[in-house]
Amino acid sequence: MHVGIIGATGYGGQELLRFLYNHSEIENISLFSSSESGVSFSNKYTHLRKIIDQPLQKIEPEKLQKLDVVFTSTPSGVSSKLIPEILTENVKIIDLSGDFRLKNPKDYEKWYKLSPAPQELVQQSVYGLTEWNKKEIQDANLIANPGCYPTAVLLSLLPLLKENLIDSENLIIDAKSGISGAGNKPNANNQFCDTNDSTSIYKINKHQHIPEIEQAMSMFAKNDHPITFSTHLVPMNRGIMSTSYAKLQQGVGIDDLQNCLHSIYEDKPFIRIIDDASKISTNQVRGTNFCDIHINVDERTGRATIVSVIDNLVKGAAGQAIQNMNVMFGLEETNGLTQIPIWI
Amino acid sequence: MHVGIIGATGYGGQELLRFLYNHSEIENISLFSSSESGVSFSNKYTHLRKIIDQPLQKIEPEKLQKLDVVFTSTPSGVSSKLIPEILTENVKIIDLSGDFRLKNPKDYEKWYKLSPAPQELVQQSVYGLTEWNKKEIQDANLIANPGCYPTAVLLSLLPLLKENLIDSENLIIDAKSGISGAGNKPNANNQFCDTNDSTSIYKINKHQHIPEIEQAMSMFAKNDHPITFSTHLVPMNRGIMSTSYAKLQQGVGIDDLQNCLHSIYEDKPFIRIIDDASKISTNQVRGTNFCDIHINVDERTGRATIVSVIDNLVKGAAGQAIQNMNVMFGLEETNGLTQIPIWI
Amino acid sequence: MHVGIIGATGYGGQELLRFLYNHSEIENISLFSSSESGVSFSNKYTHLRKIIDQPLQKIEPEKLQKLDVVFTSTPSGVSSKLIPEILTENVKIIDLSGDFRLKNPKDYEKWYKLSPAPQELVQQSVYGLTEWNKKEIQDANLIANPGCYPTAVLLSLLPLLKENLIDSENLIIDAKSGISGAGNKPNANNQFCDTNDSTSIYKINKHQHIPEIEQAMSMFAKNDHPITFSTHLVPMNRGIMSTSYAKLQQGVGIDDLQNCLHSIYEDKPFIRIIDDASKISTNQVRGTNFCDIHINVDERTGRATIVSVIDNLVKGAAGQAIQNMNVMFGLEETNGLTQIPIWI
Amino acid sequence: MHVGIIGATGYGGQELLRFLYNHSEIENISLFSSSESGVSFSNKYTHLRKIIDQPLQKIEPEKLQKLDVVFTSTPSGVSSKLIPEILTENVKIIDLSGDFRLKNPKDYEKWYKLSPAPQELVQQSVYGLTEWNKKEIQDANLIANPGCYPTAVLLSLLPLLKENLIDSENLIIDAKSGISGAGNKPNANNQFCDTNDSTSIYKINKHQHIPEIEQAMSMFAKNDHPITFSTHLVPMNRGIMSTSYAKLQQGVGIDDLQNCLHSIYEDKPFIRIIDDASKISTNQVRGTNFCDIHINVDERTGRATIVSVIDNLVKGAAGQAIQNMNVMFGLEETNGLTQIPIWI
Repeated sequence: MHVGIIGATGYGGQELLRFLYNHSEIENISLFSSSESGVSFSNKYTHLRKIIDQPLQKIEPEKLQKLDVVFTSTPSGVSSKLIPEILTENVKIIDLSGDFRLKNPKDYEKWYKLSPAPQELVQQSVYGLTEWNKKEIQDANLIANPGCYPTAVLLSLLPLLKENLIDSENLIIDAKSGISGAGNKPNANNQFCDTNDSTSIYKINKHQHIPEIEQAMSMFAKNDHPITFSTHLVPMNRGIMSTSYAKLQQGVGIDDLQNCLHSIYEDKPFIRIIDDASKISTNQVRGTNFCDIHINVDERTGRATIVSVIDNLVKGAAGQAIQNMNVMFGLEETNGLTQIPIWI
Repeated sequence: MHVGIIGATGYGGQELLRFLYNHSEIENISLFSSSESGVSFSNKYTHLRKIIDQPLQKIEPEKLQKLDVVFTSTPSGVSSKLIPEILTENVKIIDLSGDFRLKNPKDYEKWYKLSPAPQELVQQSVYGLTEWNKKEIQDANLIANPGCYPTAVLLSLLPLLKENLIDSENLIIDAKSGISGAGNKPNANNQFCDTNDSTSIYKINKHQHIPEIEQAMSMFAKNDHPITFSTHLVPMNRGIMSTSYAKLQQGVGIDDLQNCLHSIYEDKPFIRIIDDASKISTNQVRGTNFCDIHINVDERTGRATIVSVIDNLVKGAAGQAIQNMNVMFGLEETNGLTQIPIWI
Repeated sequence: MHVGIIGATGYGGQELLRFLYNHSEIENISLFSSSESGVSFSNKYTHLRKIIDQPLQKIEPEKLQKLDVVFTSTPSGVSSKLIPEILTENVKIIDLSGDFRLKNPKDYEKWYKLSPAPQELVQQSVYGLTEWNKKEIQDANLIANPGCYPTAVLLSLLPLLKENLIDSENLIIDAKSGISGAGNKPNANNQFCDTNDSTSIYKINKHQHIPEIEQAMSMFAKNDHPITFSTHLVPMNRGIMSTSYAKLQQGVGIDDLQNCLHSIYEDKPFIRIIDDASKISTNQVRGTNFCDIHINVDERTGRATIVSVIDNLVKGAAGQAIQNMNVMFGLEETNGLTQIPIWI
Repeated sequence: MHVGIIGATGYGGQELLRFLYNHSEIENISLFSSSESGVSFSNKYTHLRKIIDQPLQKIEPEKLQKLDVVFTSTPSGVSSKLIPEILTENVKIIDLSGDFRLKNPKDYEKWYKLSPAPQELVQQSVYGLTEWNKKEIQDANLIANPGCYPTAVLLSLLPLLKENLIDSENLIIDAKSGISGAGNKPNANNQFCDTNDSTSIYKINKHQHIPEIEQAMSMFAKNDHPITFSTHLVPMNRGIMSTSYAKLQQGVGIDDLQNCLHSIYEDKPFIRIIDDASKISTNQVRGTNFCDIHINVDERTGRATIVSVIDNLVKGAAGQAIQNMNVMFGLEETNGLTQIPIWI
């Protein structure tokens, strides 16, 4: 297979590279950059000297159309314009941005404050939450790869919502992210001294991942209630923890929740149900495509606390994108994604 | 005034020292330690060489009874035995541990897994949430200084509960703390490599601060519903952020919430109501006795997100203890607590 | 006393404020900013809400000339133009930038790549290394406050050079700094993810503090040999550690070095000679005006390892500036600088 | 090949696992632990659940002797007793501890304060600095794998010493390490709050790696002068930077040094000579087996500053051990070691 990465110099692009080089079916990876074509990749990302020394190429549709699959890892508002020029019957595209995720163009305009992508393509695109949409992904030409927060939230809540074990009317989701979530361009939110040794909250009730989560809850679990969702920045490079709170349905207990998760995720290679509460933390999944899930039930209140952790750059971006590619091409779902992770 | 600190070598004890040395009415501070008496304080805490070189003293009731006020900054289960030996008419005691906070001995046994303090003293003690209990504190001889989490949670929620602006039946509180919360003895939860660059959750629905929060909500706002409360460890030295979620009562809007906070805290020197969401973070209060509060209302869901931040070692421990001392002795509430904080 | 701070919004400016508010002789502090006049200081530095709410003022010479002392905490190349407009017989100026430190204008041009300040003023200015130049500082109108690295290096080496205990021909100085040294404007060198969990080296043999160190070694210890000096960035907010290596002169031993330091610094309030090697670290001086010094002698090689630590923003900038102000005005040298430091 | 790891639960053991699982010739990895046999590895290291679930085995010589190669990743003083029981003609051993590195038993006793290993085995063992001792390693049965600091120091200095380009009499080496260097058992030197945001120095002129460096300099470059060496702890998980200072020999310039490095390391897959000083930092080699080297010459002083960085747990331990295994078994030197590293 011949693959291309547009936006190879961002955090997501680098993670795509890291895993694709490990993939048994990839013959060739082309790297594209709008702003830095001609430069050797390892000239810019010097930690890859002697590893990935190939040049960054100019983005040219005719070149891209000769590839088997193209990953677009670009800021919001870019792939909506780029993908219509590239997509043909012969090339599959996996878009890591938010441009094709929201089916309702008004939602996109409202939450992203940008013009939506061509509607025909948006409708044709398939939401790439692998564990929940595998069948559709198998036949897709254009994947809208899920956002980092939605991945952590949905993987932990969809089973319980679908089986109607929790009350969908009062979902509270409190999410925490590492600072790579603020991108790799220097700005006030990713400066060392101001973020080190501090926790902040941002985009309260305004995060563009809210409509994405709600759309997926509707699609996969028929839940149409709005959620309450907030996002925090924590002084670490990577990782997302999502802590959700929900009222149990009448008569439901911890065993029902556990059984539900175990049964739905039984054969899913990247989901781990964690029993020991002291072992649910973001470093447990650092650098991996795993989503770890832990559930606690409080009998005093009749509520469940549902915790999930992912690596925002892997299961929340590049890893899931490759998992989707594997599904699209009929390959083993874990191909390329089985490196032993670094612990500390 | 002559004051004493028992447990001067812990994080709380050090912060007491830091502020008491800055207090205009303190003539003399005696430092006590069960395990290290005789040693110079700065021999152990070498950053204080040339500043606090006095020796640590043995804990002897007769010495302590000659002081005006004694702070006990000891682990759970210690001051319940120590204070009965010290307390007389002449010495006031401010206990920073959890031993005297819970009025119901069964609660203490259940959540602390320890034997409760003598009930007569427990009933006589006054809960030291300064902004809410000032009158009682003025006349108290024994203060149960609030826990760090309860302080952050209660200061932000009590006004809204008392004025019945939010639905008290479904309170969800998601709290995040720096690693000093895990104490200063080396252990698995405060080791650098395992905690650095990671976020974890702990004591889900089991934290001993739950009954303390509920008791205070009942006492100050007549709310008797149990809360859902979880606590997270974030890789920073200090700081607590509490993010609470509540349904608004019928007809209540953001202005009502804001007005309520402003009116209740109008003349409170250590409460700041923050309008700009991008300015609510733990480093905004690092090293200070402030509690910053920010409120956001989501019209889509009819819920409020209530955020508060404190320094767990100051407003959540030593700072509030000194604030209580000031109230007990009729001094200016801010005396000793007005140092300009360090920013980074 | 009425004092002014130009560049109040930088890291140095904030630290000046932190200490000056604690100073018994300061009646009034005016804050000046070229770019943000009119804005309330606490509007910009929100951690100081309810503490320092006064507005930032426009920089106007006539206003500044009415003050007793003005601190200029501006980038290189600014105060060289500003100070000539302000300096009169009535106002004393303490410049925290490098513009007035180098007596030889060619050195300034070579190392700073900027035009030098007016030579008359440069010659008139006094180098503010308080412990070594107190007499000159007493009579000065214009102080060139030392750089952060030179302060750490000189305080530890000058005694040994002056007493000819170490070989001045082969001085190797390896310095490490926290990331606040890279300023508070977002840039590639102070971004969280790239600097977190990593150590780098920069400006090898090219740092503009090299000629400053050499000039002071010549001035105070008659040493005219060039030094080897390198600077590293370490993932912490504050702090500098300087590790120096020197050959001992014939017959000199550890006791001679220790005695030399003790005797020269005997009555210096901000110098601490540390015997226990495990207690020399940057957090020992965090937030303080101390310089801690530790010496080790290796009998196998006949060399000494001389370690010193300071807080780069305090003894390396604002703290020493205030110490100099105290000397200039005949005040107690420690006035304003005796806050108990924060430990963690 | 069948391999075993003794001490699999330490940092070094985990890194061995991470790379060996990626090795094309390894059929089977057995994990041994003295204290935790029987427990599933992923029960202890939960980040490896669903990846490495095999049990930890008891250390039994007869089992170990059936393997092709055994890695001993144990504290000092353990493998000196263990290896004599295991070593036979059929099993090769790579010892990651310091027990077999020092040829002179008196050196071992002096610097390690422990009894030395049996001298016959010590003399038979081969020092595993792969790039410098490949021929001996090919025929070895017992490898003394180099220490982390010696690896960083020697790889950068040996070429220049061997070619007599620098003055070997006055070598100054200033090294900085991440906190994983302090081991994974909780102690005062690896506690979060005390080490976070601070830099310290330790074992000044007393580090047990000093005789190891000197022995190798003598062995490979005929340099018998003692070195000056100090070690610092920096708040990061991994990484070592070594900054060395040396006088250039008469007539030698930067080109000579560069040419020397390029020519000696031309075909070495894990050495990278870095020209751009802004690209030499520990995160450039994080998680990899690379050693990056940068040289700067100061014409003012006639001295060179030689900087090298490695990952202390990879090239400084597990990675180099596997590189040695590859050499011992006639495999491609890079086998198992070519994972694309994680950037942030």
